[in-house]
Amino acid sequence: MAHGIIHSHLPQVLVVHPPESFSVYQSQYSHKFHFLKAWESPLPLDQFLSTHARNVQAMLSSGISPIKADLLCHLPSLRLVVTPSTGLNHIDLSECRRRGVAVANAGSVASCDVADLAVGLLIDVLRKISVADRYVKQGLWASKTSYPIPLGSKLKGKRIGIIGLGSIGQEVATRLEAFGCSISYNSRKQKPSFSYPFYSSVFELATNSDALVICCGLSDQTHHLINKDVLLALGKEGVIINVGRGAIIDEKEMVQCLVQGDIGGAGLDVFENEPNVPKELFALDNVVLTPHRAAFTHETRASMRELAVGNLEAFFLNKPLLSQVMDN
Amino acid sequence: MAHGIIHSHLPQVLVVHPPESFSVYQSQYSHKFHFLKAWESPLPLDQFLSTHARNVQAMLSSGISPIKADLLCHLPSLRLVVTPSTGLNHIDLSECRRRGVAVANAGSVASCDVADLAVGLLIDVLRKISVADRYVKQGLWASKTSYPIPLGSKLKGKRIGIIGLGSIGQEVATRLEAFGCSISYNSRKQKPSFSYPFYSSVFELATNSDALVICCGLSDQTHHLINKDVLLALGKEGVIINVGRGAIIDEKEMVQCLVQGDIGGAGLDVFENEPNVPKELFALDNVVLTPHRAAFTHETRASMRELAVGNLEAFFLNKPLLSQVMDN
Repeated sequence: MAHGIIHSHLPQVLVVHPPESFSVYQSQYSHKFHFLKAWESPLPLDQFLSTHARNVQAMLSSGISPIKADLLCHLPSLRLVVTPSTGLNHIDLSECRRRGVAVANAGSVASCDVADLAVGLLIDVLRKISVADRYVKQGLWASKTSYPIPLGSKLKGKRIGIIGLGSIGQEVATRLEAFGCSISYNSRKQKPSFSYPFYSSVFELATNSDALVICCGLSDQTHHLINKDVLLALGKEGVIINVGRGAIIDEKEMVQCLVQGDIGGAGLDVFENEPNVPKELFALDNVVLTPHRAAFTHETRASMRELAVGNLEAFFLNKPLLSQVMDN
Repeated sequence: MAHGIIHSHLPQVLVVHPPESFSVYQSQYSHKFHFLKAWESPLPLDQFLSTHARNVQAMLSSGISPIKADLLCHLPSLRLVVTPSTGLNHIDLSECRRRGVAVANAGSVASCDVADLAVGLLIDVLRKISVADRYVKQGLWASKTSYPIPLGSKLKGKRIGIIGLGSIGQEVATRLEAFGCSISYNSRKQKPSFSYPFYSSVFELATNSDALVICCGLSDQTHHLINKDVLLALGKEGVIINVGRGAIIDEKEMVQCLVQGDIGGAGLDVFENEPNVPKELFALDNVVLTPHRAAFTHETRASMRELAVGNLEAFFLNKPLLSQVMDN
């Protein structure tokens, strides 16, 4: 294996499942790292890991596939997991901590993109852009004498409740203030550096909001944070936008609320059981659905790759990681 | 005609074609005005006007139907046209001026809504929201193992060229600055109160922009302002957004550029020959189409009605109009 010999002096990086656009990592960075590609091996995964990865110190996560105890137990030398995602819910952080494995993520590299999509979804739901686009493209405009698409709703003056005022939530707030919206938020704790009204209760925030924008991560504390009570508090005209993680909303209850008209609409980039989306949503014109692509731009994908590689380089040079997950 | 007698003391307002939601005008304002509804008469229009509208001093425009010499010549007493639209291209302003007919429009009531839709269209084109929504709703996400929707493009850092820095253009600029875009503009003349770079040539603006957002009105000066040269200067990645009027773009050339990939995408609310939209655009995923509904929100429609009625009231009380078109 000439390939293996040439690269034997390079630091090894385990890749169990390839992250999106892994071919770019390979073409741009295979002079820096030897990528150990588990999915290309005919061996069962645990056998591959036991045979080839016992000495591996660093791995590059796909950003989706689980990194839990059952995987980590085969990797006694592992000291670093790099994920090109912002979300960390696929990684068992306490198991990593217990094993002395550091974790580095995408930091805030994707925050602007995620915020842009959140605002785009909100405008789309309120102003019915996707519905209108389908209507025109189906040739319906010229075939009717009146406008059968219902009127939309104005952004200016809307009360926006942001859930999670981290870097994504802050970017959403900045953007929506420019539209004349008023911002409130819920977060683990109040952030004194922001003057937006803080609600410690999501229920109270929903009661006082025309739209909720979910920007937090998924954890035990945020799982099904948006339950039926919160949705009913948001009310018949209320809109919910989710660019966090699907399971932050009790999806079954949300679908029921949307179907029954208990809330006004939704813009969703994330779902409880991706890529499965509740089929009841497909027919609803007040719902806009995107397939978990809030960070899917050329520019941000490139920045994510650079950051992931920067973290790997720092690790192998014994330098501080660029975006170590702090609460690990 | 009991109805006619009851309202005979009320000021008469001619309505040739009903504006959108005219039923609301009727239910809310028929105690203030007697609406003379030409379209309900079995008479041919010119005969109706000659018979019933010779003494009419004010008319409420539909916001779309032409008000030109052939109509005005039947209305010798007319002194005021109120249009619930921002655009004035359906009204022959010089003929109105010649006849001493004042014109009042929607002023800047709709500016925020129009700007919101412009920004929504730009986000949609760059981030592929409508495409993604169709993809998920057709059940394609769960049926594939990879993401076949191409990556989008980041808003932050994009160079936005605004054409027409009136109230709509200014609102677009404010919003897009919050996304981290840089703003330049073209306008009839430079506006010293704004620090955005000014280009007197649309061609130069296109050369230096990633996206053009058309926010100006249609006039002899702006008809086909965006021609093939300007589109080619915008370039293969360039995006064009139009919330002005369709004929500001040479639509035939734009369609050709989109089909051939000479520009990157388009978000269009207005078209040269509404409600007819070039069918070549229907199949393009990089094009988002809405049926001239930039001002279609509940809130703005209500404000437009209030302003139209306020103008009529002011006129009949011999007070200054609320939103007289200044260059009339």
